[in-house]
Amino acid sequence: MQTKIPVGILGATGIVGQRFIQMLEHHPWFEVAWLAASDRSEGREYGDAARWRLKTAIPARVARMQVSPAKPEGAPTVVFAALDASIAAELEPRFAEAGCAVITNSSALRMTKDVPLVIPEVNPDHLKLIECQSWKRKSGGFVVTNSNCSAMGLVLALAPLHKRFGIEAVMAVTMQAVSGAGYPGVASLDILGNVIPYIAKEEEKMEEETRKLLGTLNGAGIVPAPFKMSAQCNRVAVEDGTSTGCSDGINRVRSRCAGIAR
Amino acid sequence: MQTKIPVGILGATGIVGQRFIQMLEHHPWFEVAWLAASDRSEGREYGDAARWRLKTAIPARVARMQVSPAKPEGAPTVVFAALDASIAAELEPRFAEAGCAVITNSSALRMTKDVPLVIPEVNPDHLKLIECQSWKRKSGGFVVTNSNCSAMGLVLALAPLHKRFGIEAVMAVTMQAVSGAGYPGVASLDILGNVIPYIAKEEEKMEEETRKLLGTLNGAGIVPAPFKMSAQCNRVAVEDGTSTGCSDGINRVRSRCAGIAR
Amino acid sequence: MQTKIPVGILGATGIVGQRFIQMLEHHPWFEVAWLAASDRSEGREYGDAARWRLKTAIPARVARMQVSPAKPEGAPTVVFAALDASIAAELEPRFAEAGCAVITNSSALRMTKDVPLVIPEVNPDHLKLIECQSWKRKSGGFVVTNSNCSAMGLVLALAPLHKRFGIEAVMAVTMQAVSGAGYPGVASLDILGNVIPYIAKEEEKMEEETRKLLGTLNGAGIVPAPFKMSAQCNRVAVEDGTSTGCSDGINRVRSRCAGIAR
Amino acid sequence: MQTKIPVGILGATGIVGQRFIQMLEHHPWFEVAWLAASDRSEGREYGDAARWRLKTAIPARVARMQVSPAKPEGAPTVVFAALDASIAAELEPRFAEAGCAVITNSSALRMTKDVPLVIPEVNPDHLKLIECQSWKRKSGGFVVTNSNCSAMGLVLALAPLHKRFGIEAVMAVTMQAVSGAGYPGVASLDILGNVIPYIAKEEEKMEEETRKLLGTLNGAGIVPAPFKMSAQCNRVAVEDGTSTGCSDGINRVRSRCAGIAR
Repeated sequence: MQTKIPVGILGATGIVGQRFIQMLEHHPWFEVAWLAASDRSEGREYGDAARWRLKTAIPARVARMQVSPAKPEGAPTVVFAALDASIAAELEPRFAEAGCAVITNSSALRMTKDVPLVIPEVNPDHLKLIECQSWKRKSGGFVVTNSNCSAMGLVLALAPLHKRFGIEAVMAVTMQAVSGAGYPGVASLDILGNVIPYIAKEEEKMEEETRKLLGTLNGAGIVPAPFKMSAQCNRVAVEDGTSTGCSDGINRVRSRCAGIAR
Repeated sequence: MQTKIPVGILGATGIVGQRFIQMLEHHPWFEVAWLAASDRSEGREYGDAARWRLKTAIPARVARMQVSPAKPEGAPTVVFAALDASIAAELEPRFAEAGCAVITNSSALRMTKDVPLVIPEVNPDHLKLIECQSWKRKSGGFVVTNSNCSAMGLVLALAPLHKRFGIEAVMAVTMQAVSGAGYPGVASLDILGNVIPYIAKEEEKMEEETRKLLGTLNGAGIVPAPFKMSAQCNRVAVEDGTSTGCSDGINRVRSRCAGIAR
Repeated sequence: MQTKIPVGILGATGIVGQRFIQMLEHHPWFEVAWLAASDRSEGREYGDAARWRLKTAIPARVARMQVSPAKPEGAPTVVFAALDASIAAELEPRFAEAGCAVITNSSALRMTKDVPLVIPEVNPDHLKLIECQSWKRKSGGFVVTNSNCSAMGLVLALAPLHKRFGIEAVMAVTMQAVSGAGYPGVASLDILGNVIPYIAKEEEKMEEETRKLLGTLNGAGIVPAPFKMSAQCNRVAVEDGTSTGCSDGINRVRSRCAGIAR
Repeated sequence: MQTKIPVGILGATGIVGQRFIQMLEHHPWFEVAWLAASDRSEGREYGDAARWRLKTAIPARVARMQVSPAKPEGAPTVVFAALDASIAAELEPRFAEAGCAVITNSSALRMTKDVPLVIPEVNPDHLKLIECQSWKRKSGGFVVTNSNCSAMGLVLALAPLHKRFGIEAVMAVTMQAVSGAGYPGVASLDILGNVIPYIAKEEEKMEEETRKLLGTLNGAGIVPAPFKMSAQCNRVAVEDGTSTGCSDGINRVRSRCAGIAR
């Protein structure tokens, strides 16, 4: 019987951090060995520090773990990151520099030139970009990002079409659950009896990430797929749900992508 | 001081019939002079026969009018029709044959070859089609239709673009209020916490009506605008609202129509 | 290893019938052996006849069973009934007369003098009423009813108070999910952005059933608990949920029962 | 033609302040002559400082008025106050001390011994309490409060019953719209598909204010009505609405108050 690989979770007390803990609980390869969060939680038992919001119980072993400071010292080699974008922009490079393999759910570095943005079923070859990262050469550390959850479902559907036929243009419209905005997130006065035709930065993310995900790797970076794209993102009065293509599992996105044959 | 033109309302007890009454109450040209509905209401006072659902009060004069049978005998020359499509398909031609000018909100005859489908701001020239109607030649009667409410808002936006630049393809996505499905309409179990990505016949109507509305008149009919179109219609958990481009005033449609410059 | 008791389900294709099948799937004592429904389903395979609406899969063995006519011939001795009240009023006595033990979720016979209305944790002694039923004496058959789901949760809370202190008066207010009205049930136009302060017959049921459930058995019937009671039942824009005190598991009731100490 | 009475609005930029402006726009007696708000708005034109959220247009004259600091200097004699409770507790006494007649929507001083809590249709005689206020004797200023909006509707219904029969006990349950929590207020994740059985301080306010409103005036204060009361306040997924008994007009409360005859 083999030993599992110890992994850390950066931003462990937030809702995405909790999802990491939930999904790794019975994982055959990985075992949560280190939890880090903000100063407020540092030094406390995880079960006290986190306001657990998931329907499955908090794993007993994890609840008793002590929350570490969000610093690379003491972190295991593999770190799953679940930080807000603004904090991620600062901390993720620091962990990579210290030699960590940072796999992140944050949008901070997704569009960075030598950082791979990966959906394993779609563009695993982009992982070669890791070799271009200066962190990799110096310390062995690196950063890999996943995509915006709205882009994820869309790209899974577009990838085989793109491969077989080539795509000229994409128009995508989403209707997204309020859970995607976090908590407290969307005010009830804004969404009851309403549709909000705007989600900050979501349309930009969908447009640029879709093209990077379907792009081609050359020497030092990704050449984005050359098609035109227009994304329209709407918030609807739907609580939440399971979304097939969504790594955090809390944001139901309904993408409509209609084709026009030529 | 001029006399107003007497008009009739066919299907006067339904919600669309009520809207006609409401909107004609202080009309400078027209005066409601005849109300017709199904056998169930025939012979009763309108105020008793109709279950008035609008927020403004039922006009006192109209409330005391007697409901006539839905037959052309006794109807005035101008008739606004607010019947369900299946009944309209049978009754509207009968009224036209008897010499009535039938202006209808129903979808029954919208795509009929010699029946104009008109948005006055967009294609008033299509009214010339009236001259091709056999009813017109025989009795002077005719039928004019308005469009599906989702098509209406879209076409008002597309028309100047089509005129100035020409349109190659249209992809439209709607999020429509439950009021558009009438009463009882959408079951609450289906729409609470949900989006329903299907409205029966709505996508077909949007696609074919948009092309007819933007089409060009030739001899005996309309040549549809030649662009490709894909409509995606969704029902969302929104009660109702005022829609600028919607003649019945009870169905808030949110159309998103994004353009991709070439 | 013992043989399980074969049971029948009357009204098996409806949503409550489906719940019976779901909850009996791995039952240690009972095994579904007979399914009956209306003429429309009779003779068909259950998997075809029922429009399965539950989240757990339809049990494979049950899906292949043939639906029997809703007649006592061929029914096993124990029958769980899930019929609409109007049909139950006619069929349940017929099954009891034929010797069946009918345990029913319907309201039809709940208030019948010699029919026990039972919450097992509260008034199991009321089951002695079975002996008073004429069916019992003739054929051995009988009818036992469960309570309205709003009464159920309330009575579980009231029972120990009633036993220890006695109750003078009860005022109960409920906020009930739309699932309780079945499908299509509540129209979305009625409940979106609204509370409906009326559920047909629900207040009457809560008031009379609560008093019967907490009543005392004497010779030939139940003397209702002597307190006064006022129930106010409201429908709210909540889909559905698991309700602890609700046997059908599909109707989340939130009862508020506030006490005033004297 | 008479001159209107100049009035000031304290807390003019908030939603309740906006309602005061809206409702005073065509008032036959009063004219808005002074607007005060927090430091952030001070010195700016009201039209710039306020994020106007009402459906009627901001009155043009008011939009051009300059926002004054929230200090008694320069305020007119009559001041309508629309401050948050914590700020009102500090500022309202200061304005009264300076000689202003402060009529307030805040809960800060409602239960203060010599401050009248008044519903004009119910207890106008309580206004005599004004004479007991030390501010009155010194500067002529005073404070009068209105009630919690949930108490208001309830008390209008209870008052005649209390007068004619006397009330022994009251149990009230409310279902309140999210607008009552202000903006952003209730998180959509908390209320979609849900009922929240708690509104901070609302039950306490309803209970104590109802008894004060129906209390009797004696020498130096109000003897609360002697009945027992239990209030249960719930938040439901309803946006907002016009509530007959609710002075701010933005919070639809549905009170259920059921009686039990003895």
